[in-house]
Amino acid sequence: MTGRILLIECADRKGLIHAVTGVLLGHGLNIVANDEFVDGENGRFFMRTEAEGKADTGRIEGEIRSHLPEGAIVRFSPTTKRRLVLLVSKDYHCLGDLLLRHAHGDLHATIEAVVGNHAALEALAGRFGVPFHVISHEGKSREEHEAEVLDAIRPYDPEFLVLAKYMRILSPGFVANFPSRMINIHHSFLPAFVGPSPYRQAAQRGVKLIGATAHFVTEALDEGPIIAQDVIPVDHTYSVEDLAKAGRDVEKVVLAKALKLLLEDRVFLCGRRTIVLS
Amino acid sequence: MTGRILLIECADRKGLIHAVTGVLLGHGLNIVANDEFVDGENGRFFMRTEAEGKADTGRIEGEIRSHLPEGAIVRFSPTTKRRLVLLVSKDYHCLGDLLLRHAHGDLHATIEAVVGNHAALEALAGRFGVPFHVISHEGKSREEHEAEVLDAIRPYDPEFLVLAKYMRILSPGFVANFPSRMINIHHSFLPAFVGPSPYRQAAQRGVKLIGATAHFVTEALDEGPIIAQDVIPVDHTYSVEDLAKAGRDVEKVVLAKALKLLLEDRVFLCGRRTIVLS
Amino acid sequence: MTGRILLIECADRKGLIHAVTGVLLGHGLNIVANDEFVDGENGRFFMRTEAEGKADTGRIEGEIRSHLPEGAIVRFSPTTKRRLVLLVSKDYHCLGDLLLRHAHGDLHATIEAVVGNHAALEALAGRFGVPFHVISHEGKSREEHEAEVLDAIRPYDPEFLVLAKYMRILSPGFVANFPSRMINIHHSFLPAFVGPSPYRQAAQRGVKLIGATAHFVTEALDEGPIIAQDVIPVDHTYSVEDLAKAGRDVEKVVLAKALKLLLEDRVFLCGRRTIVLS
Amino acid sequence: MTGRILLIECADRKGLIHAVTGVLLGHGLNIVANDEFVDGENGRFFMRTEAEGKADTGRIEGEIRSHLPEGAIVRFSPTTKRRLVLLVSKDYHCLGDLLLRHAHGDLHATIEAVVGNHAALEALAGRFGVPFHVISHEGKSREEHEAEVLDAIRPYDPEFLVLAKYMRILSPGFVANFPSRMINIHHSFLPAFVGPSPYRQAAQRGVKLIGATAHFVTEALDEGPIIAQDVIPVDHTYSVEDLAKAGRDVEKVVLAKALKLLLEDRVFLCGRRTIVLS
Repeated sequence: MTGRILLIECADRKGLIHAVTGVLLGHGLNIVANDEFVDGENGRFFMRTEAEGKADTGRIEGEIRSHLPEGAIVRFSPTTKRRLVLLVSKDYHCLGDLLLRHAHGDLHATIEAVVGNHAALEALAGRFGVPFHVISHEGKSREEHEAEVLDAIRPYDPEFLVLAKYMRILSPGFVANFPSRMINIHHSFLPAFVGPSPYRQAAQRGVKLIGATAHFVTEALDEGPIIAQDVIPVDHTYSVEDLAKAGRDVEKVVLAKALKLLLEDRVFLCGRRTIVLS
Repeated sequence: MTGRILLIECADRKGLIHAVTGVLLGHGLNIVANDEFVDGENGRFFMRTEAEGKADTGRIEGEIRSHLPEGAIVRFSPTTKRRLVLLVSKDYHCLGDLLLRHAHGDLHATIEAVVGNHAALEALAGRFGVPFHVISHEGKSREEHEAEVLDAIRPYDPEFLVLAKYMRILSPGFVANFPSRMINIHHSFLPAFVGPSPYRQAAQRGVKLIGATAHFVTEALDEGPIIAQDVIPVDHTYSVEDLAKAGRDVEKVVLAKALKLLLEDRVFLCGRRTIVLS
Repeated sequence: MTGRILLIECADRKGLIHAVTGVLLGHGLNIVANDEFVDGENGRFFMRTEAEGKADTGRIEGEIRSHLPEGAIVRFSPTTKRRLVLLVSKDYHCLGDLLLRHAHGDLHATIEAVVGNHAALEALAGRFGVPFHVISHEGKSREEHEAEVLDAIRPYDPEFLVLAKYMRILSPGFVANFPSRMINIHHSFLPAFVGPSPYRQAAQRGVKLIGATAHFVTEALDEGPIIAQDVIPVDHTYSVEDLAKAGRDVEKVVLAKALKLLLEDRVFLCGRRTIVLS
Repeated sequence: MTGRILLIECADRKGLIHAVTGVLLGHGLNIVANDEFVDGENGRFFMRTEAEGKADTGRIEGEIRSHLPEGAIVRFSPTTKRRLVLLVSKDYHCLGDLLLRHAHGDLHATIEAVVGNHAALEALAGRFGVPFHVISHEGKSREEHEAEVLDAIRPYDPEFLVLAKYMRILSPGFVANFPSRMINIHHSFLPAFVGPSPYRQAAQRGVKLIGATAHFVTEALDEGPIIAQDVIPVDHTYSVEDLAKAGRDVEKVVLAKALKLLLEDRVFLCGRRTIVLS
């Protein structure tokens, strides 16, 4: 074991850092980076540790767990690359950006497949040799369509599902298949402009900044915990189309940033919000 | 006349710029800066021109008006400093920032007086020798209180009213006294977190950016046309109090920026949004 | 002719806007957007006008020229897409980003070919069906290598050359072939960290922001007029490699932004700086 | 003792966090926030811990020191407010901003006095009842002037000296009196535009962003370790004076931010750069 990441989440109490670092030290591991956070309101302790050295991760997890409050989550990140499936509609910019990073070894994950409810991006996935499944929603009930999408996804057994400008609302039933394992890029600075056509809303409201928000997908639309956000300045000369075009650059960068944080195991869920440890 | 600013707003049609610049040329004026905008949706034309030279502004306005569609607004900015009255509650940062700029000749306006519904900032105004009127709202109906505030403001005959963290909602009746002449700084990135306690909402929602919005005050709360906005990054370690403190620096800078644009006559109203000409 | 862009640059004097708009009006053209700027120091006038209507552009250019000071530059933008050739080395992110935009109709130009001094990105260009020429610099003098690069570029007759992370310094002789027609993305916030290894310099200096600068290429290295810049926050935890990775997202977005401004004919040269009209 | 901050800096080796947290635990202290960083290149370990509980700080420091490598720096932050002396010239914005925060309890320090080489800001300090010493440099050698400044500062025994737009270069001899205890706000995004007149340089170079940098003062001008930086967008319409005005808002916010980090004991020096722990 070299350069492993240890993740801990439990009820807060005195002595947690000392206990955890004691176990790591006992196994001869050297801590090279460490970040903790205590959420005072909920009394929760979060810790992310990068340690160097060779050791038996299962045994270490068990030892640490024995020092922590009941119900503690203690786990080492896998050393294998995570498997991703991407869901898309017609917008190319987020998919293209992720395929580029993937093809050049910058993603720390494998894009196993892309599922689209349109065929518009099939050629793009093809350029990078990534399987693409067209599953049109036309003439189907939401349940039927989602069942087909699930069938297409299942063989790839993805750890994370990435909605890379997937423009359909997913049912709570679908979402329940990927608890804390599905992220979305929303084309606005949430919680402003929840729902569809945010750029039209933004133009009518005359905002001077537009943004993008990457968040976990939960049952409540556009209400999942936020992972990353950014904005860019705009002005009265921007048409709805101009806003949408300008927004694309923010969207793709924010989605890639959120995915990077997720794949580096920096993102913890804490109620309606995220804790992002450095 | 040297360095005068001409403001025009009318229905759009061919030849407007040519007609206006022709009149200015005929009077020997030299255009040193010029910006126009046509709002296609509403068919409105906006123009702001800085011209150098000596001339009869009243006559020029009349001549230009004769070339423009009926109902055109044509006016030169006044050469005298605008008079401002500020409304405040307990937060010092916006008031203090404006008093500082005012005292050092950076505001291009005179702060005639400050009205507070608390006495908390009386000493601060006093440091700068600016009259401060404490008009408590306690034990009064909204109508009674607003009538007293109006009575205090009236003698100063302000061109603009600046809500510099005034934490009371103003009635449509009060607002009607200052059409397009009252601006507010809202402690969030509108339209996110409309209403009170935005920093509490922001903390619970776990946003990664917080912002501030300066806007005209209209009858609909937090819905007036936006003049300026900005954001700063925050993270999970920020308490509600931390967010509020961090927000203060954005608020004061955004309010000052909006006021500068307003006092330089760069802000035009166009439906629910502003046109800000450079 | 519908939606043509007229560009004017000349010595400043009274009446220029009136004269130009008069000619356009005489030809029945409707101005839908207009921006001007007078550089006081150099006494230069710059104007960019978007006009709608059908007309004889050659005749209009002549008429306008007859009203302007001698030496005036008056030209309508071409209606055909500009031809680009890209120069690259090993970094994929800028090339990939431009290829993606190009393939999806977002670039307003055609990427005719890519020339690389390494073969590393040949496969990437191939994914998008764009010709790629590998012209290694190894074992050649600068003059020999540049002559080969020029030979490869020439058949494509590009209007603009884009250095998309081309990591070789070009001789003044090479640069002279593309006056005001070559842009570069520099991996730092110029004028900080001129020269090579800016991320190493940035790490050692402990900067809290890193940036990217897109600029015209002139004979003086990293001294050409700046078109666009942006920055992102970083901190002490970033290694040189982390800074470089983070910088890629800024670089590609800034280069794409500068190229967009250039292709929309918004960028004028004025001494050592650019005028970017809206 | 409640809510004390412990600061540690030493050569890196295994087991440091475990050792330190063990001592704190032994004394019944509860860690509420903790951040560490290991600078790999220099092999230095930095740690900042906020702990709650009542204990003998001197004894704890000793115990911790006994567990750490020789030469370790181990200290609790003082519970008393730090004393500051500010040095200024003619620009009011940074001084005014700090006086405002100070007067309203937002600074976590006391401004003991202000020293100016001009009398321009004497009235401003007077508004807030802060002593102001005018020590003109005219007709004096640098050594004479600095000696007088030192004499004026000495009675206040400041922990930190803040150069709030002090426009004179300080000699190494003067700087040596306040090792790691003097900070400056530089009116540019260092390392761009080192030296005087950065706004003139910026205008001539046509930059699209301007910034400010707060840094420790060391013997080498504008080369001290950077604490905080920020930028704002500008364009070709900004004159040198406009750039300077726009820059003021960045300068005051960046200086205040750096001072806040310093007063919260978050800033560690590490060679030519700072480590800023959260």
